[in-house]
Amino acid sequence: MAMEVVCLDLEGVLVPEVWINVAAQTGLDQLKLTTRDISDYDELMRHRLDVLARHGLGLADIQAVIATMAPLPGAVDFLNWLRRHFQVVILSDTFYDFARPLMVQLDHPVLFCHNLTVDAAGRVVDYELRLPEQKRAAVEAFQRLNFTVFAAGDSYNDTAMLEQADLGVLFDPPDKVVAEFPRLPVTRNYRELADQFRAASSRQLSD
Amino acid sequence: MAMEVVCLDLEGVLVPEVWINVAAQTGLDQLKLTTRDISDYDELMRHRLDVLARHGLGLADIQAVIATMAPLPGAVDFLNWLRRHFQVVILSDTFYDFARPLMVQLDHPVLFCHNLTVDAAGRVVDYELRLPEQKRAAVEAFQRLNFTVFAAGDSYNDTAMLEQADLGVLFDPPDKVVAEFPRLPVTRNYRELADQFRAASSRQLSD
Repeated sequence: MAMEVVCLDLEGVLVPEVWINVAAQTGLDQLKLTTRDISDYDELMRHRLDVLARHGLGLADIQAVIATMAPLPGAVDFLNWLRRHFQVVILSDTFYDFARPLMVQLDHPVLFCHNLTVDAAGRVVDYELRLPEQKRAAVEAFQRLNFTVFAAGDSYNDTAMLEQADLGVLFDPPDKVVAEFPRLPVTRNYRELADQFRAASSRQLSD
Repeated sequence: MAMEVVCLDLEGVLVPEVWINVAAQTGLDQLKLTTRDISDYDELMRHRLDVLARHGLGLADIQAVIATMAPLPGAVDFLNWLRRHFQVVILSDTFYDFARPLMVQLDHPVLFCHNLTVDAAGRVVDYELRLPEQKRAAVEAFQRLNFTVFAAGDSYNDTAMLEQADLGVLFDPPDKVVAEFPRLPVTRNYRELADQFRAASSRQLSD
């Protein structure tokens, strides 16, 4: 009955964009860029680490911002609904050190993401991608384990995962992602996203 | 920091053996056999389906028994501790139709298991393995996604997963499994199991 895995992006789908909040709270506009703006993730991360280094911001400063963040309105209820009906794995290009306070608020869903390299003084000196194209690779791995995979995300770094999934859905994406990936269905709220998953499921979901 | 996945067997590790409870509550001693007794899973399942059919027991009867079951003492706290520190996936050779009431009590961890085929009259007519050797295959898939995998289980159907994992630990196993797999460390309670995972982690866990 439930041989379906749902893979969800984190930022922009369940929680706000971390770096946009860091930019707002630190006043550093150069940190406002996200995967929505720069499709090359390494270029984006090098830019971010540069800005942090130039302004003397360490892991603790970013964690202090993240600790003030909350899931998007409705995200906790949506995720709880999903977990009752599907096996849910969050696939994010964030880092475990950043995500932890948000995972507590989401009641510890499974999260596949990446690692930061932090020096003894607490400076973020590098980042370690666990795997290139990890989102697409995870969807493929679940499919090879004989699961049907539904996925949702909002950004450039989600489109490979969405195209690999049996059902890939854009969630509240920027216009240019919609324009570049016209074949991906677009949803604007959790009700619409739940309806997509409900319709694609091989099962009659009870709610 | 947290590039570690923990894979746990379900029955015998977090919850009691479902079929032993079904045997006890239905009075059908032929349903007492588990993977601890018969290492060939298909042989065991054919035997169970035969017994159910001969005695006119359907899915609803088994679900009624499972609805009376609770996680093992300490299991919820142990799983909550694990989820704070690791990405946790339950790998079980049970079926989604059986597991659901237990998953509610465990707060919906991710579960990879199998499907039952139930006819219109509610009779369990067959079972569908999602994948042969699914536990070992899932551990391997997580390793290919560049995770270190710790695993724990109690039975014959866990040993391939335990041997594939970076750390595989027996949890409260029967003596004959211990004797046949002398290289696998043996733990008898959640504290011992947590200590194994804590020691193997690349991180200093805070509790």
